[in-house]
Amino acid sequence: MFDSFHIILVEPRYEGNVGGVARVMKNFGFKNLALVNPCKLDKEARQMSMHALDILKSAKRYDSFGEMTSDYDVIVGTTAKSAGDANVRRTPVYPEELANALDRKGRVSLVFGREDYGLSNEEIDACDMLVSIPANPEYSTLNLTQSVGIILYELAKQNMKLKNKNKKFKLVDQERKRILLQYYDRLADETRETDFDKSLAKKTFRQLIGRAFISGREASTLIGLFRKSWEKIRKGKS
Amino acid sequence: MFDSFHIILVEPRYEGNVGGVARVMKNFGFKNLALVNPCKLDKEARQMSMHALDILKSAKRYDSFGEMTSDYDVIVGTTAKSAGDANVRRTPVYPEELANALDRKGRVSLVFGREDYGLSNEEIDACDMLVSIPANPEYSTLNLTQSVGIILYELAKQNMKLKNKNKKFKLVDQERKRILLQYYDRLADETRETDFDKSLAKKTFRQLIGRAFISGREASTLIGLFRKSWEKIRKGKS
Repeated sequence: MFDSFHIILVEPRYEGNVGGVARVMKNFGFKNLALVNPCKLDKEARQMSMHALDILKSAKRYDSFGEMTSDYDVIVGTTAKSAGDANVRRTPVYPEELANALDRKGRVSLVFGREDYGLSNEEIDACDMLVSIPANPEYSTLNLTQSVGIILYELAKQNMKLKNKNKKFKLVDQERKRILLQYYDRLADETRETDFDKSLAKKTFRQLIGRAFISGREASTLIGLFRKSWEKIRKGKS
Repeated sequence: MFDSFHIILVEPRYEGNVGGVARVMKNFGFKNLALVNPCKLDKEARQMSMHALDILKSAKRYDSFGEMTSDYDVIVGTTAKSAGDANVRRTPVYPEELANALDRKGRVSLVFGREDYGLSNEEIDACDMLVSIPANPEYSTLNLTQSVGIILYELAKQNMKLKNKNKKFKLVDQERKRILLQYYDRLADETRETDFDKSLAKKTFRQLIGRAFISGREASTLIGLFRKSWEKIRKGKS
């Protein structure tokens, strides 16, 4: 799916993390993994990769960071250091801002550093841009697979938004919402004594269905119930 | 920071995952962890928790899912099944839609199921709403700590956006929600003909108020209207 994106791990020390990265790549539709001078990959890496053994096996290898960079058009580095940090060499963007890269052609590398100290200053200088996951300033160092997962999630999410704006279910249309509110309001008028209470009841329901993004089907179900309730109340009165 | 949110792991099997969850909770400013009938927590859990040993150590324990649910105002379940899945029992929302819960007071539990088969159908039915991380339909099962990390990341991100904005509403408590549903259900029973329609009407309303994170005041307003409607219908009958 995300053919132009390449996930690069620089000198990962724990094979379980490499396997975990392969897994979460597959979870979000990425397939290109590359490793710069990695630890030995053995049983644990394979176990942690679960159904993404193919990604693990086809991972490209580089001997050095410099060798890797020449293979890509854009190098995106990741860092735990946030913009507020005095030590930061460059202001990183938020993960969602990577979405700008989604409608570009070319080879983009997302580069993740070592578990213990990330990317070196020289490596960071070689990046075209930096991305940072906003986290608790008191403890901002995420686990490596966690960082990869969150950034790929964000890319997949932004891609979904770009691609098609259809929601899972169809939102209620204006006409049906009007009918729903009409019957609800009739119930409110029948059952609430004061103007204040009537108005409060009406406002409350509007806010509720607004926040819930009520669907067309849900609205129809409630219309049926409210209309019938109102008819029965009217009938009882006559 | 996120005092009202509680992360619940139901019968986690791998202690490393529990430690990893504690770590990522601290990364995003969450501190309340609870465990339902967990595996033994030993050295690996402590190692994976890194600088979040305090969270791991203060984790609350429950013997059963039912015991846990009574402790919270809103139960948010997590599922790998997406809306397109025919097996889905209820339509889940996207993680970012949990942001609705951020400006509420009350105890919200985010419940994560077992590594191998998630939450049972009975457990899912006991949830007020479901959230699902949109992933590759061909392999949508994320690692447990990965799922927790992504959802907490999204909450922290949305919270950052909301900050400086809203005053907090108090969430409906269990008792008032019970009364609300009781009167709504009476209306459904009075106005819907078939068992299927009654059940659909009831399910629809539960999902709606779950997604909207209905407040205590909103619930009281609707209780008044539904109770009076029902009384009037009954009176008309006699």
